[in-house]
Amino acid sequence: MNTALFNLEEVLGSITAPAQELVTQARKHLDTLTKPLGSLGRLEDLAAQWFTIRQGNVTNTVNKSVYVFAADHGITAEGVSAYPSQVTQQMVLNFLSGGACINVLARLNNVEVNVVDVGVDADLSSHAGLLQRKVRRGSRNMLREPAMSEEELAAALSAGLALAESACAKEENLIAVGEMGIGNTTAASVMTAALTGAPPALVTGRGTGLDSEAYARKCRTVEAVLGRHFAKPAGPLEILRCGGGLEIAAMTGMILGLARHRTAIVIDGFISTAAAAVAYALAPAVRSYLFAGHRSQEPGHRALLAHLDIEPILDLDMRLGEGSGAVLAMPVLDAAMRIYQEMATFASAGVSGASA
Amino acid sequence: MNTALFNLEEVLGSITAPAQELVTQARKHLDTLTKPLGSLGRLEDLAAQWFTIRQGNVTNTVNKSVYVFAADHGITAEGVSAYPSQVTQQMVLNFLSGGACINVLARLNNVEVNVVDVGVDADLSSHAGLLQRKVRRGSRNMLREPAMSEEELAAALSAGLALAESACAKEENLIAVGEMGIGNTTAASVMTAALTGAPPALVTGRGTGLDSEAYARKCRTVEAVLGRHFAKPAGPLEILRCGGGLEIAAMTGMILGLARHRTAIVIDGFISTAAAAVAYALAPAVRSYLFAGHRSQEPGHRALLAHLDIEPILDLDMRLGEGSGAVLAMPVLDAAMRIYQEMATFASAGVSGASA
Repeated sequence: MNTALFNLEEVLGSITAPAQELVTQARKHLDTLTKPLGSLGRLEDLAAQWFTIRQGNVTNTVNKSVYVFAADHGITAEGVSAYPSQVTQQMVLNFLSGGACINVLARLNNVEVNVVDVGVDADLSSHAGLLQRKVRRGSRNMLREPAMSEEELAAALSAGLALAESACAKEENLIAVGEMGIGNTTAASVMTAALTGAPPALVTGRGTGLDSEAYARKCRTVEAVLGRHFAKPAGPLEILRCGGGLEIAAMTGMILGLARHRTAIVIDGFISTAAAAVAYALAPAVRSYLFAGHRSQEPGHRALLAHLDIEPILDLDMRLGEGSGAVLAMPVLDAAMRIYQEMATFASAGVSGASA
Repeated sequence: MNTALFNLEEVLGSITAPAQELVTQARKHLDTLTKPLGSLGRLEDLAAQWFTIRQGNVTNTVNKSVYVFAADHGITAEGVSAYPSQVTQQMVLNFLSGGACINVLARLNNVEVNVVDVGVDADLSSHAGLLQRKVRRGSRNMLREPAMSEEELAAALSAGLALAESACAKEENLIAVGEMGIGNTTAASVMTAALTGAPPALVTGRGTGLDSEAYARKCRTVEAVLGRHFAKPAGPLEILRCGGGLEIAAMTGMILGLARHRTAIVIDGFISTAAAAVAYALAPAVRSYLFAGHRSQEPGHRALLAHLDIEPILDLDMRLGEGSGAVLAMPVLDAAMRIYQEMATFASAGVSGASA
């Protein structure tokens, strides 16, 4: 098992929001471009946010990557998923051979794919292309005990923090986080109810496609887990430890580590947003570095995005995970920054302004 | 003035929907891919539609283009826009020199830009890069008389139909239509109210950014135009002739011509969707070939998309025109088709399916 290499207090203390003057500067520039004021809507917000995150260095190359964190979940013993647990490892192999949705989207959008084993319940040590960061073969069954021990949580967080360090050292500067883990929408539902106070039934969805009977079982399981661990309010780390999962903890660590290095993060769907919500609860300045790739079909995702007060870029009723919604949204971010850099101004193009 | 080169009845009669078996074939293939059933949401709908339009020829190169139709509007004499009419010609020059938003987005997404003068109120004949299809220097003031004579309408429709022929001859197969024309949201509001029966106040927006006084004037103008020309219900061509504009008529012609050649069309915002709504009213099978790039901030656009029963790809509160929302959405269409072509199947990747 990895041991904790980071002092979490020190990491959290080093996360600060970018200077607000940069937002003002970005807005001023956007208003000089040859378009009616504000007519690019949310694209202007995205451009201003990214300009701010990049500290105004808009001409640097954009190096895009996605990190797909994979782990299994002890809670699958309760019959909460339409697919067997082995699909987690099978999909990891699919990622490594380039046949999954995330591979297709990443190839198309010039994004480097990194697959991380934080807790797959299989021996994958022979796969050279895989980032081997296994903490344990699957989280524990959270209906019986916390999903992770204190040490397992620290190891998973550390794995994510360390990957953030290496990604920043490689000058990756637009980084998506995604996941694969049969059973992980159950964990995300537990976390969402515990973090936001939303009624469990409103934040529990059909995951990969449950029938009514299995869905009712999943709802009962979420309620029972909440009753077991969160009868009294708990802090974000305890919510993550008892109700999360190894890949979710690793994503939380990575998000904290990237925010510390003022790096743009694109979160994906329900699971990665649950990780972001824990990071935000620990260090609210994290929010300045987050883009939400899309709004997923999972009802809990809507609650989490509202809790974080982040508008997603896309809303296409997807619910796949893998970072797919995050990578699919990257061309919109590319477009926002290119518009910022390349559009003519009213003065340079000799275009008349609006009447006063 | 161009004269009508097309027999409209013959064009309309030649527009047919693609075979529904192709939709079934596409859905069947999508269900074999390594993802939970239906988990790519609207991306799967887009892939199935595009597969169908392309008659299953998914490996052909995708040649993307955008046609930006520019024209002035006599109705601007009534003070319905925040910008002076000259901005139309100034923006045409901006398109030709590559400094406008559509140029930036097209460069980024590998889309060829074509700028068409169908009715700009300026002599632009010296500009070699411009497609010279001017019918008249601006449409007539629709508050006083029909926006176009019968001959002007026929000439503008023909210009669009002819451009569709040449685009298809060049094997362009994913084609966005956009526009530039100060005053044209007023025309689109008139057309939307006349086509859908929606109350004019609900389909009239602030366009390029009107203050309250000018907005009230625009609403009164739209009502007065409707009273003048459409006190009795009118057919789609008469709505286009009396309440439209030269660029809107040319877009209608282009959409009809592309649908006739079974070519995928990406419509943009309020104005190009008004053109598509006329084309749809004339030949309902047009709808099978339409993708809606985005939902604009203009309230009338929502009414038109509902009338056409088309869900937009993006929803980013944009209201620029130029084809910007259509070209910004093209990477999502690229992604949908690539997923269709490149993802592994459950069988090929050895991934277990869902429990029955």
